[in-house]
Amino acid sequence: MNDAVGLIGHAQNAYARCIDSGNLEAWPDFFEDECTYKITTAENYAQKLEAGVIFANSKGMLRDRVASLREANIYEPHVYRHFLGQPWIVAQDASEVRSETSFFVARIMRDGTTDVYATGRYIDAYKLSAAGPKLRERIVVCDSSRFDTLLALPL
Amino acid sequence: MNDAVGLIGHAQNAYARCIDSGNLEAWPDFFEDECTYKITTAENYAQKLEAGVIFANSKGMLRDRVASLREANIYEPHVYRHFLGQPWIVAQDASEVRSETSFFVARIMRDGTTDVYATGRYIDAYKLSAAGPKLRERIVVCDSSRFDTLLALPL
Amino acid sequence: MNDAVGLIGHAQNAYARCIDSGNLEAWPDFFEDECTYKITTAENYAQKLEAGVIFANSKGMLRDRVASLREANIYEPHVYRHFLGQPWIVAQDASEVRSETSFFVARIMRDGTTDVYATGRYIDAYKLSAAGPKLRERIVVCDSSRFDTLLALPL
Repeated sequence: MNDAVGLIGHAQNAYARCIDSGNLEAWPDFFEDECTYKITTAENYAQKLEAGVIFANSKGMLRDRVASLREANIYEPHVYRHFLGQPWIVAQDASEVRSETSFFVARIMRDGTTDVYATGRYIDAYKLSAAGPKLRERIVVCDSSRFDTLLALPL
Repeated sequence: MNDAVGLIGHAQNAYARCIDSGNLEAWPDFFEDECTYKITTAENYAQKLEAGVIFANSKGMLRDRVASLREANIYEPHVYRHFLGQPWIVAQDASEVRSETSFFVARIMRDGTTDVYATGRYIDAYKLSAAGPKLRERIVVCDSSRFDTLLALPL
Repeated sequence: MNDAVGLIGHAQNAYARCIDSGNLEAWPDFFEDECTYKITTAENYAQKLEAGVIFANSKGMLRDRVASLREANIYEPHVYRHFLGQPWIVAQDASEVRSETSFFVARIMRDGTTDVYATGRYIDAYKLSAAGPKLRERIVVCDSSRFDTLLALPL
């Protein structure tokens, strides 16, 4: 079990580091070609409501999202800083690890204001291969149902 | 030493996960039958003042607390999200590990507001057995002496 | 790689614990005699601007800083609580480990107010020896460019 905690913990750290350093173009590479990425709320998730704030089901869609963020660039400049709990291993076999990981994201606006942007948990399915773990599915379940309209950078 | 960090880190993660998922009925099971659970402030703790905000000395008292929370249900609905530092191993032998662990708890109110609810450290004595580590003593030392009257869910 | 994560993670935990417990006199001992300690902003760091908020290049300067904090004592009493991400190992050989670690510091004022004081990353060079890792260089890169004039305790 501990090996999986270490392996997934390292993958999560790389993911957070990618976004926090602003290297959004590399973000889709944490996913399999066929993948699910969804941002939803705890309330919707508990009620099994499909409606998510953001939904993508291929790496191509994730790339499109980054491209439109870069082009549109209408959002107020800001950066994120992710903090992650230790991954909780829900299930694992030779080819896949399912885990849940608490996240806390601080947002730092251009003017220096820092606030608690979002808290919640990642519900993940990591596909294992020689190239390292890749996300087959990430469901980002936010604790709060109140979303800032600035929602722009990936969580 | 690293084995203890891994073992206690996993136990702390399970504890946080239990509360954050709202599964309060399972919370007393992280404790021994005879146990101490206390919430106090850094100021009181430093002065060795006994007065704590909350005090229990048996698993039964912890169960009573959960039951009254469920029945009374007078508090405004909210959830917690715990973030824990790496445990610091203070002492260990074959049957017990003493550790200190920083915590940060975000509170998410029903209306979606998220704030920093409490920070501090857990001062723990974990009893080891084949069934895994159980808390013989947890002293929750909060950094702030200002307590929200909403104090309801366990820390 | 995992050994270095464990080793540096433990050192970072000890460092945070030292400051959060108010034991500032022990803080310089986390550094080599010849060392660099700098606090700067992400903006300045990205532009390779030398100007930092705080700069020291010897353990003696760190000791002086603690001494003047203790003597002057003009700042409003407050404590910190550090939360650290898993260290990211950038490079390592037999004598040195270079790592980057996200930090989040909550500040608790005397009146009990708690806020997000600073977020950012430590860019570190840890010298390895039988006595354990010591900092040859720590650059504290704060995400926000807005600094509270209370900046007093070390980060």
